[in-house]
Amino acid sequence: MKNWKDFAALKTGQRLAALAQKPYNLAQPESLPPERIAAYQASACGFDLLYATQRLDDEVLATLQALADEADLIEQYKAMKRGEIMNRIIGHASEERQVLHTACRDIFSDTPLAPDATAQAKEQLAKLKEFLADLDSGKLCNENGESFTTMLQVGIGGSDLGPRALYFALEKYRQPGRSAKFIANVDPDDAAAVLASLDLSRTLINVVSKSGTTLETRTNEELVRAALTEAGLNPAKHLVAVTGSGSIMDDPARYLAAFHMYDYIGGRYSVTSMVGGVTLGFAFGYDAFIELLRGANDMDRAAEQPSIHANLPLLMAMLGIWNRNFLGYNTVAVLPYSQALLRFPAHLQQCDMESNGKQVSRLGSLVTWKTGPIVWGEPGTNGQHAFYQLLHQGTEIVPTEFIGFRCSQYGRDITVKGTTSQQKLVANMLAQSLALAQGRDQENPNKRFAGNRPNSVLIAEQLTPYTMGALLALYENRIALQGFCWNINSFDQEGVQLGKILADRLLGAMAGVQELGKQSSELALLQAAGMEVGK
Amino acid sequence: MKNWKDFAALKTGQRLAALAQKPYNLAQPESLPPERIAAYQASACGFDLLYATQRLDDEVLATLQALADEADLIEQYKAMKRGEIMNRIIGHASEERQVLHTACRDIFSDTPLAPDATAQAKEQLAKLKEFLADLDSGKLCNENGESFTTMLQVGIGGSDLGPRALYFALEKYRQPGRSAKFIANVDPDDAAAVLASLDLSRTLINVVSKSGTTLETRTNEELVRAALTEAGLNPAKHLVAVTGSGSIMDDPARYLAAFHMYDYIGGRYSVTSMVGGVTLGFAFGYDAFIELLRGANDMDRAAEQPSIHANLPLLMAMLGIWNRNFLGYNTVAVLPYSQALLRFPAHLQQCDMESNGKQVSRLGSLVTWKTGPIVWGEPGTNGQHAFYQLLHQGTEIVPTEFIGFRCSQYGRDITVKGTTSQQKLVANMLAQSLALAQGRDQENPNKRFAGNRPNSVLIAEQLTPYTMGALLALYENRIALQGFCWNINSFDQEGVQLGKILADRLLGAMAGVQELGKQSSELALLQAAGMEVGK
Repeated sequence: MKNWKDFAALKTGQRLAALAQKPYNLAQPESLPPERIAAYQASACGFDLLYATQRLDDEVLATLQALADEADLIEQYKAMKRGEIMNRIIGHASEERQVLHTACRDIFSDTPLAPDATAQAKEQLAKLKEFLADLDSGKLCNENGESFTTMLQVGIGGSDLGPRALYFALEKYRQPGRSAKFIANVDPDDAAAVLASLDLSRTLINVVSKSGTTLETRTNEELVRAALTEAGLNPAKHLVAVTGSGSIMDDPARYLAAFHMYDYIGGRYSVTSMVGGVTLGFAFGYDAFIELLRGANDMDRAAEQPSIHANLPLLMAMLGIWNRNFLGYNTVAVLPYSQALLRFPAHLQQCDMESNGKQVSRLGSLVTWKTGPIVWGEPGTNGQHAFYQLLHQGTEIVPTEFIGFRCSQYGRDITVKGTTSQQKLVANMLAQSLALAQGRDQENPNKRFAGNRPNSVLIAEQLTPYTMGALLALYENRIALQGFCWNINSFDQEGVQLGKILADRLLGAMAGVQELGKQSSELALLQAAGMEVGK
Repeated sequence: MKNWKDFAALKTGQRLAALAQKPYNLAQPESLPPERIAAYQASACGFDLLYATQRLDDEVLATLQALADEADLIEQYKAMKRGEIMNRIIGHASEERQVLHTACRDIFSDTPLAPDATAQAKEQLAKLKEFLADLDSGKLCNENGESFTTMLQVGIGGSDLGPRALYFALEKYRQPGRSAKFIANVDPDDAAAVLASLDLSRTLINVVSKSGTTLETRTNEELVRAALTEAGLNPAKHLVAVTGSGSIMDDPARYLAAFHMYDYIGGRYSVTSMVGGVTLGFAFGYDAFIELLRGANDMDRAAEQPSIHANLPLLMAMLGIWNRNFLGYNTVAVLPYSQALLRFPAHLQQCDMESNGKQVSRLGSLVTWKTGPIVWGEPGTNGQHAFYQLLHQGTEIVPTEFIGFRCSQYGRDITVKGTTSQQKLVANMLAQSLALAQGRDQENPNKRFAGNRPNSVLIAEQLTPYTMGALLALYENRIALQGFCWNINSFDQEGVQLGKILADRLLGAMAGVQELGKQSSELALLQAAGMEVGK
């Protein structure tokens, strides 16, 4: 913990603050010569980051490196991977846990950094491999001897967003006759609509909850069990569980199989554990899931490099710190030019905002600096016809991160006016990058573009299980590195507790088992909302 | 135009700025007594807005009313509905158009405010009614005499987001054997994935483009036509068009039917025109679409009331102005506690950010005040397990707008621990409202909640075609009223032009018909991205 220093105490910060008084002007003539575009690139695992369109120069880059060094970010990252207790707040009650999502993909080396966690991951993978083989061979089938065609994942938050985003991203790679669906919301209409679209007799339901007590997931599991029973099916033959060892869901009498998750992997970092593995393995096959892990593991290794020029996650982390803490922008838009990535921004929104939307440093005091930004985004080119107006001409500046691929997944394309749709897609992404950076002067003020909207482009050949794994780990590592730099605990989520407590009180009142004061805000709000209170 | 005054010139603004120095403290003890909760409510068209959890008091409310009066917002709104040229910038070339989306639902009165536009809307509705009747009777069917089961809408931006959001919102009300799908993105994988899931022989394709020249839509139409031809089907028997009268798509030889849209309705305000009408009418029936229009029209009438207490759109507009311009918050989260509304935030993101993400006043000068915020959001309770951490404990304050319903749509529910899922859903929403507002003190700084996160709750009985129409118009009107107050043109989108121009240049280079300078940023960026340049 010796290297846990408050962000405000980092001396390099003062130099960066001075440099931020006059950031590189992207809107000046010749601001983006070929040499700059060629120089401001970095690569890892098949991805190239083009960042000439950020508001910085070599001096800023060198100083960001110095900041990373002063904060000892890479040592902290390695300590995380080795299993040090990174989920803690010094001097106060806190979770006091290891943070080892990287261990569940450190399976390709003979000397994993956290051997125990990696051994547990391998054990679960072996179980998954056998389970999937039994499905393939027909050893596991439904009551009529038919194969299962759909896996319905029931989970919420980390047990939903990541697996769902990656399922959509890789749908092209579905095995014949296999698909997945998802239920998350406690809104009963979510389950009702999804259940109505399924042939339950050929559906496996994968219930994911570490504690086994998540309100939404428990309730939706009950809804699903009731629907199975109503359809004359035996729930115990259709449900599998992904849960903590020994949780109330770890029960062979009630589930066809149980896969384990561990308290050293937080929900929002759990896609590469069994939380994502069971459904993604079912849909895409075991080997595709291993490819995903390989991509993630390769990116985890890249993240150990000390130089920002050789370490894509670190570079992206430091570009974010520059935009957030020195240029003062409080949001980030993630804009994938890939319809398959349509839910990836929602996953990142969770992963980033739940990790770094924090107010207390790891040393236990209120922060005096800005922490995590608001992360949002939708796929391009759709967004161009939606909110890009504000990006170009609004009174707020939004740093943007484009993600694109040179090749489509399906290869079903058409040439119109001399270019394919895929070329149009990439051309639009690059054009937006230039337009946001350079702007354009014009006599009519309403047609003027001020430029100087910082952005970068991340591009790879194609979205595959491997590149998806690398992209996921790139962002996971970027988020963790930024958390280290801000000296916050990116691995707890105390901010969700108060809402839970108040919801329990309101539900108690509705059920007639909780007395609310006659003059309480709670009772008044329930009444104003027209909700009945029990007894 | 006499009442077009710059926001900075409104005298009431100074009083509000002074009041904003000490906004109502929601985190103090007894900040939310029952009297406040009861008093800070307003209603329209079945919706109740509970806004005691905003940081204001009676004096602020009265001053916001004075600001609305000084800016003459209601007169401007009525002028818009009567057909004055509201889409313009004085002294500069601009679109110079009427803004009459309200006219296409002003069909229930004998004396519509803009009779010509309403007559055109009625003409299109009559055409739609006949078209849908022909589908119902079997007069219109496929080559094998089978009914059409799916409508595939091909459009982007305003021709996609609104219709798609409303389709998901009302899926419960689908007619038997009818459903809709959507393609928007120029990404060829979008079309490939959707086409692979369809029985084309029983699919109608609804191509929506006002100009008939939108790049994405043209390209996707070609992809669809090729797929139909490949399947041995005649495109002219499967495609319908929604387009401007006289556009190249207005061609009976190539489309089964054509419905018209008019240049006085902007894309992002076009859901209640044929842009939404054809697909929503196909899926839910003509009567349901009329119910949607009725809800919208009722809300349009409510928006004419001069008092913020009697005018929900105006009240929400002024609460937004308070948070944006006086308390200084630059984002808004829209959080529907309804899974059916999962894409409604994306629609609002477009409608709001493209309308009000502006830098030039209607008098032609750069604004010196903040205009439209960044709008984002995801359904609750999902969001609670994702980004709410930042909402409660981050270093940014995000005003939040909750939307909920007392009853579910399907009514398939389950009681667990004495409450239904629907009760859990609403209880969680109300609990979040209280938690964000009041916060909680605690010795452990990491478990402390500062509160004073402004929010409001919008609640109605159930999400139906009528309430969906009202909700849509509530936000459309809120956005327009805010635009009037900021004295910006909420109805153009010049900010999307530069990206288009640059994309055309890059595409020309890829196709080998555009020379880019050897030292140009464009060529350098294409090369850095690994994209081939023609010839």
